[in-house]
Amino acid sequence: MPSDVERPAAAELAQSKETGRLEAFSDGVFAIAITLLALELHVPHLDDAPPTAAALWSALGHQWPSYLSFVTSFFTVLIMWVNHHGIFRLIRRTDGRLLFANGFLLMLVTIVPVPTALIATYLRTPAASAACAVYAGLFVVIAFSYAALLLAARHGGGYLLEPHAEPELNLRLRDCYAVGMPVYLTAALVAPLSSWLTIAIMTAMWVFWSVGRRARASGFER
Amino acid sequence: MPSDVERPAAAELAQSKETGRLEAFSDGVFAIAITLLALELHVPHLDDAPPTAAALWSALGHQWPSYLSFVTSFFTVLIMWVNHHGIFRLIRRTDGRLLFANGFLLMLVTIVPVPTALIATYLRTPAASAACAVYAGLFVVIAFSYAALLLAARHGGGYLLEPHAEPELNLRLRDCYAVGMPVYLTAALVAPLSSWLTIAIMTAMWVFWSVGRRARASGFER
Amino acid sequence: MPSDVERPAAAELAQSKETGRLEAFSDGVFAIAITLLALELHVPHLDDAPPTAAALWSALGHQWPSYLSFVTSFFTVLIMWVNHHGIFRLIRRTDGRLLFANGFLLMLVTIVPVPTALIATYLRTPAASAACAVYAGLFVVIAFSYAALLLAARHGGGYLLEPHAEPELNLRLRDCYAVGMPVYLTAALVAPLSSWLTIAIMTAMWVFWSVGRRARASGFER
Amino acid sequence: MPSDVERPAAAELAQSKETGRLEAFSDGVFAIAITLLALELHVPHLDDAPPTAAALWSALGHQWPSYLSFVTSFFTVLIMWVNHHGIFRLIRRTDGRLLFANGFLLMLVTIVPVPTALIATYLRTPAASAACAVYAGLFVVIAFSYAALLLAARHGGGYLLEPHAEPELNLRLRDCYAVGMPVYLTAALVAPLSSWLTIAIMTAMWVFWSVGRRARASGFER
Repeated sequence: MPSDVERPAAAELAQSKETGRLEAFSDGVFAIAITLLALELHVPHLDDAPPTAAALWSALGHQWPSYLSFVTSFFTVLIMWVNHHGIFRLIRRTDGRLLFANGFLLMLVTIVPVPTALIATYLRTPAASAACAVYAGLFVVIAFSYAALLLAARHGGGYLLEPHAEPELNLRLRDCYAVGMPVYLTAALVAPLSSWLTIAIMTAMWVFWSVGRRARASGFER
Repeated sequence: MPSDVERPAAAELAQSKETGRLEAFSDGVFAIAITLLALELHVPHLDDAPPTAAALWSALGHQWPSYLSFVTSFFTVLIMWVNHHGIFRLIRRTDGRLLFANGFLLMLVTIVPVPTALIATYLRTPAASAACAVYAGLFVVIAFSYAALLLAARHGGGYLLEPHAEPELNLRLRDCYAVGMPVYLTAALVAPLSSWLTIAIMTAMWVFWSVGRRARASGFER
Repeated sequence: MPSDVERPAAAELAQSKETGRLEAFSDGVFAIAITLLALELHVPHLDDAPPTAAALWSALGHQWPSYLSFVTSFFTVLIMWVNHHGIFRLIRRTDGRLLFANGFLLMLVTIVPVPTALIATYLRTPAASAACAVYAGLFVVIAFSYAALLLAARHGGGYLLEPHAEPELNLRLRDCYAVGMPVYLTAALVAPLSSWLTIAIMTAMWVFWSVGRRARASGFER
Repeated sequence: MPSDVERPAAAELAQSKETGRLEAFSDGVFAIAITLLALELHVPHLDDAPPTAAALWSALGHQWPSYLSFVTSFFTVLIMWVNHHGIFRLIRRTDGRLLFANGFLLMLVTIVPVPTALIATYLRTPAASAACAVYAGLFVVIAFSYAALLLAARHGGGYLLEPHAEPELNLRLRDCYAVGMPVYLTAALVAPLSSWLTIAIMTAMWVFWSVGRRARASGFER
């Protein structure tokens, strides 16, 4: 029979187990979404009969927008996973609000392959600007969803947080507001001017999130 | 050599490990099924040569039934996962009956994408009523499968249950009988009158399961 | 510094962790394969413009071989998972031989959707006998792969096994040889006479594996 | 309040938990990628109306390049998983460098199905040499990515490594440089001469990695 001292510790453990389960479920969704990106890489269909090696090399080379958007999206989802993990290191308990903020973020993770395929399909056409604007626009919404997750975690006077987690959480929140949202919005708005400018901004952000202070604080750095 | 006192404790631990494994397997199926929903979001095919940005925007906008059914199904599966987890918090041991009731529920989870795609494809056609009836009908069966899981858990005089779990289990069971089954059945039956009425009822249920007492007791709330 | 007594215990723990990891990886493959089965359920394509509800109901009804083969394969893979788990409860250590026997079994699990789709496509055609023979034939090979896994586990004088595991392992092995292989082979051979006889035998086996002594000893039963 | 002695132990445990999480995420990607390989096995489409059993058998037989490339890729990814696991047994801590080296390796794992499908589609055509060169070329890059992972793990004076792990790590690195890279490069370069020579070399490497000292040291052998 647990003593009065042990009982809160057991409740604490149960809470932390719930949070671990939510994180494991999220990890599963991230792992599946990142693997499904490769489904957008197709075997080229050759019209020649019989198909020649030269034609296959040429058809494979012609698919470079697919490779570009695949690599970009793969590392983008990887960095999102690292940051998601970095946020959950700050969280000790979960509630319904956090659960749904996390669910909204996961939903956005699972649809990353769609605008990725959009860019792969339309990058060499006049429709590229629309494809790039949709891609950047999704990341505006993703920046919002990270902010919503951070706000849900901070809600309730820090009750859900690990001790001393609030300063880092506030730093991450500031990055969403001051960097993520405005920069991705700019990337979406400049797409009609130049698709390549959008892609350049998206890549720069990729470097920012990965080598910036966020990754350093994510628990994977020593 | 374990003493007589330790032996039941070790058996208890083994039982609880089995239950944890069944839950982890179920979580995997939920995570994959929820991620596969996004496979129904397609890159629109444009007939124009070359395709223009305006045509792409228009084609993307034209796909709104896909977005609607994707978001609805994503949060539906998410809530099903939360409730599944809430039920397994009440369960200490598993037996064959529970295993198959759980398998039946998982099977229904994996096919949610099919009626979702059915709605996305036929919502703007006269066939919408059939698509909506199938969608709501699946949730009648899902409500049955939750009841079957709860009955399998309660079977055997509470032997499979955590101590003090029976009242919450009975509450959940009553919700299946008194809310889930009749309301989803109504949603299916009104589909020939109005597809939108079916969708409205499905959305209302979505709110009921997520903010109702079930979610509150699911272990994710403090 | 670990004492001489602690060192073997630590090695034992490491071995058991390795086995747990192999089982977790296998569980992941089972969970994905079982979820991918639903990808074979398609939204029917209607030629009418505009499509009517009656046409959609009729098209959905016309797909019944898909539903039949989906449900059969889902529960088949579920039972395979239960039996796989039942076997790993007997195993304490892994070696390369066991690793590859397990890999061979997993490979067969991942291809179950293919003959399932074959039956769904050809059940109402004269090619049904070939589809059913392939389906039953796969399960002959699966019975072999379970035998290979059991032999790999027994290899080396029981060094890989939990104490007292050998009798149950031998029972399972006998079931592979005396029930699984001959019955599935019969199911494959009678396919040219009657596809339905093959399906009836496959379903009977499904009952045998699930309610037989194998499931009872799988650790999910009390 | 943890004492001065306990604090480093707790930090150590947290580090090891991070590494475990990265490995679990990687395992998830491996499990999904290996299961998705089966998506390249298609149900043959028969033009005859009605389709006969003989035509189905013939069409299934005609797909043998698919079966060959599926089996090869399945065991290749399985061996990559075993070796990945063998490397992570040497690693105690992770940092950003290791995280991205691992991410690069995982990205290559997820695209293995693409050149696999390329071989399945073009093996019986004059384009086979290009398909085989791409397949072998991917494994040159994979050998590089294993070397990058090993270098990232060794970086920083062995700070990230388990004690006594460096000799085995150096052996694995030497295998990448002295066996993996040159042999896969040779396999890619001989593809224009003979596709079958490429396939023979790839299969020989498959044996090398699985029965060589690498697998023996992977933790799955006793």
